[in-house]
Amino acid sequence: MTSRFATARACSNIALIKYWGNRDNALRLPANPSISFNLATLYTETTVSIEGGERDGVELDGAPATGDAARRVTEHLDLLWGANRPHARVRSHNNFPMGAGIASSAAAFAALTVAACAAMGHQHAEAALSALARRGSGSASRSVPGGYVAWRDESAYSIASAEHWPLVDVIGVVSAGHKKVGSTEGHALAPTSPLQAARVADAARRFEACQRAVAQRDFAHLADLIEEDALMMHGVMMTSTPSLMYFLPGTMAILHEIRALRERGVEVAFTIDAGPNVHCICAPAAVPAVEAALRGLDGVRDVLTSGIGGPAQVIAQAAG
Amino acid sequence: MTSRFATARACSNIALIKYWGNRDNALRLPANPSISFNLATLYTETTVSIEGGERDGVELDGAPATGDAARRVTEHLDLLWGANRPHARVRSHNNFPMGAGIASSAAAFAALTVAACAAMGHQHAEAALSALARRGSGSASRSVPGGYVAWRDESAYSIASAEHWPLVDVIGVVSAGHKKVGSTEGHALAPTSPLQAARVADAARRFEACQRAVAQRDFAHLADLIEEDALMMHGVMMTSTPSLMYFLPGTMAILHEIRALRERGVEVAFTIDAGPNVHCICAPAAVPAVEAALRGLDGVRDVLTSGIGGPAQVIAQAAG
Repeated sequence: MTSRFATARACSNIALIKYWGNRDNALRLPANPSISFNLATLYTETTVSIEGGERDGVELDGAPATGDAARRVTEHLDLLWGANRPHARVRSHNNFPMGAGIASSAAAFAALTVAACAAMGHQHAEAALSALARRGSGSASRSVPGGYVAWRDESAYSIASAEHWPLVDVIGVVSAGHKKVGSTEGHALAPTSPLQAARVADAARRFEACQRAVAQRDFAHLADLIEEDALMMHGVMMTSTPSLMYFLPGTMAILHEIRALRERGVEVAFTIDAGPNVHCICAPAAVPAVEAALRGLDGVRDVLTSGIGGPAQVIAQAAG
Repeated sequence: MTSRFATARACSNIALIKYWGNRDNALRLPANPSISFNLATLYTETTVSIEGGERDGVELDGAPATGDAARRVTEHLDLLWGANRPHARVRSHNNFPMGAGIASSAAAFAALTVAACAAMGHQHAEAALSALARRGSGSASRSVPGGYVAWRDESAYSIASAEHWPLVDVIGVVSAGHKKVGSTEGHALAPTSPLQAARVADAARRFEACQRAVAQRDFAHLADLIEEDALMMHGVMMTSTPSLMYFLPGTMAILHEIRALRERGVEVAFTIDAGPNVHCICAPAAVPAVEAALRGLDGVRDVLTSGIGGPAQVIAQAAG
């Protein structure tokens, strides 16, 4: 069998309104709606080759994948191609530092979905690709469309372009360590927190207010909203059983610094994913001040800066 | 008029199940029940002298009190003695370092209440003294009875003696700074958090489970419970409007250290009041290990250790 392959690139994304907990864990249907934007400079490139061998081969950042990581890729190919599928070789590469604590599963499953469908010649609309990516990792649904993205149900969709409001994410990298509890497991713990139901019940308000803030380019409202939303999620995480405590000393140093900057009029606000790193969402004019402030803090190991990225896309392809 | 005076001593207390938010702000009736124990080595001594002068004189830790601090003392004397009261001289001294971020209003209003009533010759039962202290500072109600104390409504009451379960509080002092937002103001903000109603709705469960854990001297349950409860309160604080963010880098360093110690079998758990300091509640055998661990952490300025204290009491008195 002649080789066919496709390579896709998909950006990581940062949620402004967070997804935490599923209403259906198997289908990864979210407990609450979320809003994110893609991160242009933090992306995954994945090549899927249909090679007809004896088994799948999965290579992540140049090393053979084993265990859970390989199994999730293989199961996702089963979902995309069906049970009688050919074997494939999957090579995936993140352009951001390994182990920087940047969530990679969103970009990874978006890129894998788009590459695998293209390699097989499946033509899917963006919504269908987003829904398929979601099955591999919930937030991967948001890395398929470009710009500002909303996700409520089966698939995510763009709500504004990057050009509409070119905000920037300056990431304070606090830890290079691997998470003790991965996101898939973490989402399943969300209902054990006595605060999760209240967080979910209030989510429509935050989602709509965030959509409005994006539409109106209203930084002051966006700032209060994304900080509140992130802190609500971490309130749920900390009070779940077992308790998930992602904040490190460097995390708190950044949070207080960002609030001090905003009090001095700098357009910056923080958000925090399921990890210790802090994403400082800011106006382009604020980037130098935010980068300098982060680099001056104890516990900050690296600073990564990204504008808003476009949709996942096929960047190379060959039919056999 | 001949001078009459009384001196009372009252301990600070640390809540295992936290009080945050009032169902009646003016009366300081709490939104949810709480449980605490008194801290034997952290106390306030207050002398109230009835001197019949032209105005009240209030002295805190050797310096004349002015502004809000003086006003709260004066208003509390109005409450205790009625509108036509004589003027008084009030001298209050904390035996713990000023500005260590140890909540002092609980001990202060318990001592002031007991001293002022004794100076005036008012004989009150403990419950009445607790209810009066509450009007000055909610958590002061818990510094009137001794040992383990519960507070649900008008007044607090002992639920177990110190000897029943002689736990120890090892306090990691993280900041010497003054709080930006005082507790009275903070309690009023509680309802602005979308999480507060859920925290309150779940409070009876935590209160009853904590009572059981104390009765059965069940450290493992107590540990999970007090950490969850403190983190729920901070989840509410962080998501109130304005957001109250008390955790500092040193706070997180201690929290992770305490969890690591417990994973290694050390009987210790954390709780955190409305401030950055961490109270490490532990079995007596764990004290040396906990103290040593805290002293080794960046951001920890001091370590204070206390066993469980008795009730507020009159320690000197003279009738004119």
